[in-house]
Amino acid sequence: MSERVTGPGEPTLEDLRQRLVDFAAARRWQPFHTPKNLAAALSVEAGELLEIFQWLTPEQAAAVMAEPERAHRVRDEVADVLAYLLQFCTAVGVEPLEALAAKIERNELRFPVPDGPADVDGSD
Amino acid sequence: MSERVTGPGEPTLEDLRQRLVDFAAARRWQPFHTPKNLAAALSVEAGELLEIFQWLTPEQAAAVMAEPERAHRVRDEVADVLAYLLQFCTAVGVEPLEALAAKIERNELRFPVPDGPADVDGSD
Amino acid sequence: MSERVTGPGEPTLEDLRQRLVDFAAARRWQPFHTPKNLAAALSVEAGELLEIFQWLTPEQAAAVMAEPERAHRVRDEVADVLAYLLQFCTAVGVEPLEALAAKIERNELRFPVPDGPADVDGSD
Amino acid sequence: MSERVTGPGEPTLEDLRQRLVDFAAARRWQPFHTPKNLAAALSVEAGELLEIFQWLTPEQAAAVMAEPERAHRVRDEVADVLAYLLQFCTAVGVEPLEALAAKIERNELRFPVPDGPADVDGSD
Repeated sequence: MSERVTGPGEPTLEDLRQRLVDFAAARRWQPFHTPKNLAAALSVEAGELLEIFQWLTPEQAAAVMAEPERAHRVRDEVADVLAYLLQFCTAVGVEPLEALAAKIERNELRFPVPDGPADVDGSD
Repeated sequence: MSERVTGPGEPTLEDLRQRLVDFAAARRWQPFHTPKNLAAALSVEAGELLEIFQWLTPEQAAAVMAEPERAHRVRDEVADVLAYLLQFCTAVGVEPLEALAAKIERNELRFPVPDGPADVDGSD
Repeated sequence: MSERVTGPGEPTLEDLRQRLVDFAAARRWQPFHTPKNLAAALSVEAGELLEIFQWLTPEQAAAVMAEPERAHRVRDEVADVLAYLLQFCTAVGVEPLEALAAKIERNELRFPVPDGPADVDGSD
Repeated sequence: MSERVTGPGEPTLEDLRQRLVDFAAARRWQPFHTPKNLAAALSVEAGELLEIFQWLTPEQAAAVMAEPERAHRVRDEVADVLAYLLQFCTAVGVEPLEALAAKIERNELRFPVPDGPADVDGSD
């Protein structure tokens, strides 16, 4: 799509978005992949990610990846959220990286960096 | 970070993840960016995306991007979901593209492509 | 609103709210029942209710209670949502029926009943 | 459970459920009130309640009702969650208090009260 050099085994977001399109097409799941259904599924999966953390103390939450079974669940839910987000973007024709870059630019104007020692002491 | 050639204005997911790290650091927001808070924020934003669609008929939902104000809201919420997902991944040390690639592979085993005319009539 | 005498075996919302308080106290779960944790749990359970419907067509969704296993899941998730809502209300000291009555009154002002044949043809 | 006589101005859950039915009917909103749409709306509102808490420290969250504007938002979102839950129950024919009572009974079997001083010292 673009003149991008990536090594094998390093898929880009666009590569994975296309794999998800092919995956759904091969299984004839497209009729279910309406924008509304995909937005619902995205919300459900985000809830499943939150579920892992709902009763954890801050200390337990910070150590969540030290426990293999929980770490697997976290990676699995991250994947599900990203998958439905990409499938939603396909369904409505939104380019997710462009949307995020534009939002960061708006936020840089909306939340100016405060003056003072923040810059000096290396916080960026 | 990697030997990837991308043109100007074509940020990768990793570029944007790093920009979000810098953005939060410059504003000293990191103390708020715990895994639990970010999982909650991700879920909240996914709900805001779903809100756009909750009362729409399938026809209205399919035409959502034809209406400029709604299209802007959709792009904005997609960006928010992706931003919090990337910030969550930073907080727990998960590589989102790896997590998704691994999940797609598990799903290819879990949901085999059905036999029959699916391949023939072009559904992939 | 009406004079109502409730007999035994017909618990009120307040009865169930109190039973949930006792249930958590007996199991020493109160330290986990912070407003923030309970708001997260409520959101997670609402997601689980939505999950039942996410891929259903309108026809399938309308018939959801005809299928015993799904009907049980629906009742179970309704109960979970209501339980966490009541526990949240306990944690923050909100009276849910008062809050809802006040909201309905605000909405009656905000969304006036349209003129015309709506009243005539029996829609209230 | 107890013999209770409710006077005027103390609506029961069922009174409010019925008022919501009348409210929607008068405005001809029933076609939108499908089980799937209402489950989505419930999830969206639960997210809005969580939003109030997402960046708060435990101390700030505990004091949320001391700040009048936030306290109003909390009551408002509690009302919205309860409203959509009741409307969902209407749409699928579930009796919410029965569903919750049955769930509490299942949970009493599933999570037995631990032995020891918990009952004696007042289940603190």
